[in-house]
Amino acid sequence: MVKVLPLFNNIYRMKFIQKEITLRAYNRGFHIITDPIVKNLPEIKSVDQGFLQIFIKHTSASLTINENADPTVREDFESHINLMVPENQPYYKHDYEGADDMPAHIKASLMGASLQIPVTDGRLNMGIWQGIYLCEHRNYASGRNLVLTLWGI
Amino acid sequence: MVKVLPLFNNIYRMKFIQKEITLRAYNRGFHIITDPIVKNLPEIKSVDQGFLQIFIKHTSASLTINENADPTVREDFESHINLMVPENQPYYKHDYEGADDMPAHIKASLMGASLQIPVTDGRLNMGIWQGIYLCEHRNYASGRNLVLTLWGI
Amino acid sequence: MVKVLPLFNNIYRMKFIQKEITLRAYNRGFHIITDPIVKNLPEIKSVDQGFLQIFIKHTSASLTINENADPTVREDFESHINLMVPENQPYYKHDYEGADDMPAHIKASLMGASLQIPVTDGRLNMGIWQGIYLCEHRNYASGRNLVLTLWGI
Repeated sequence: MVKVLPLFNNIYRMKFIQKEITLRAYNRGFHIITDPIVKNLPEIKSVDQGFLQIFIKHTSASLTINENADPTVREDFESHINLMVPENQPYYKHDYEGADDMPAHIKASLMGASLQIPVTDGRLNMGIWQGIYLCEHRNYASGRNLVLTLWGI
Repeated sequence: MVKVLPLFNNIYRMKFIQKEITLRAYNRGFHIITDPIVKNLPEIKSVDQGFLQIFIKHTSASLTINENADPTVREDFESHINLMVPENQPYYKHDYEGADDMPAHIKASLMGASLQIPVTDGRLNMGIWQGIYLCEHRNYASGRNLVLTLWGI
Repeated sequence: MVKVLPLFNNIYRMKFIQKEITLRAYNRGFHIITDPIVKNLPEIKSVDQGFLQIFIKHTSASLTINENADPTVREDFESHINLMVPENQPYYKHDYEGADDMPAHIKASLMGASLQIPVTDGRLNMGIWQGIYLCEHRNYASGRNLVLTLWGI
């Protein structure tokens, strides 16, 4: 369970790999993107202990981890977040990019711009029900850019 | 304040330690878990500059950092999040695991699945009022699994 | 795009730099603090691939990433979060530090206590519209303490 690798291994195997990828465009809503991320990182297999960090370079889409099984979970996320952060509120001043714009910014900060997932024995060490979500908060968005950084021993 | 260690030390002391632990079962609500985490990581003492990352392998419980003193803070968290994400909403489609299930998923993403805390001079470098919270969003849950990763120099 | 540096470089260039800074006091609301952070870290220029982690040592202020251009975005954040987490709710028990105190704790956990931003080719690798926000949730606060950690190759 605990590995403090000897000196030689530590040096030899330390890895730091950074890539930028562009996802395809997704509709507004919550979407599982575990597969396209893992497919872009065959190097995960070579990491015994480490992390994958995923950073989204946008302020109207976000990332979270949640249930990877029943698709109605993602639908309910979209329904509820639209009530928590409604459009067309009288106090919104930032409204010239459309009714979905300011709510998208707020939703993005509630969910967050990055995830960091442990890597163990060459695999993402998530729970069996966990998947990586792209949260697309705009009505019409093009593909989102992600920075993927994998590091460890 | 700034330490760029010389070559030899950097190599010799770089550490990467990963453990999985299972917490005892907690009731629904917000709970301080700083102590059980630190007790599982005596290796923190050996890290001069680094991080502890804590990752929860579940989608209906979450982690956050907040006030470690007055227990009514944790009670108020539970009261308020239950209003922000109420049960039995007519638009929930994912309802076959009970009324607390879909709200638990949404609460988990609002709080987040991981924390990363700086380690400095062999100790978690948090503010004096900060503690690590387990946010248990289900009515009846068993012990939650955490991945603890400590790394640094 | 993918760099697995050869052994010698990896050893020679691994960096781990940790600093604590105190921001000036800000009014309640959302504020861009990208500049004061970057100015305290000229060492970013020397990191080819890595991260900056920013950790706030408080439970009534928080950090997020959002739009760095139109100042009304920050005003709308403040307006909306005040509705999501209102003051003077009858169920608040933790009220002896003022009406803004318990809401500040909840807002802080919704936004989060830390950020981790990729560093690439000597610069923070954020999107062009992204900036680092300090979210000050108290009416009257003094300067907030941040731990800045920069590491990479």
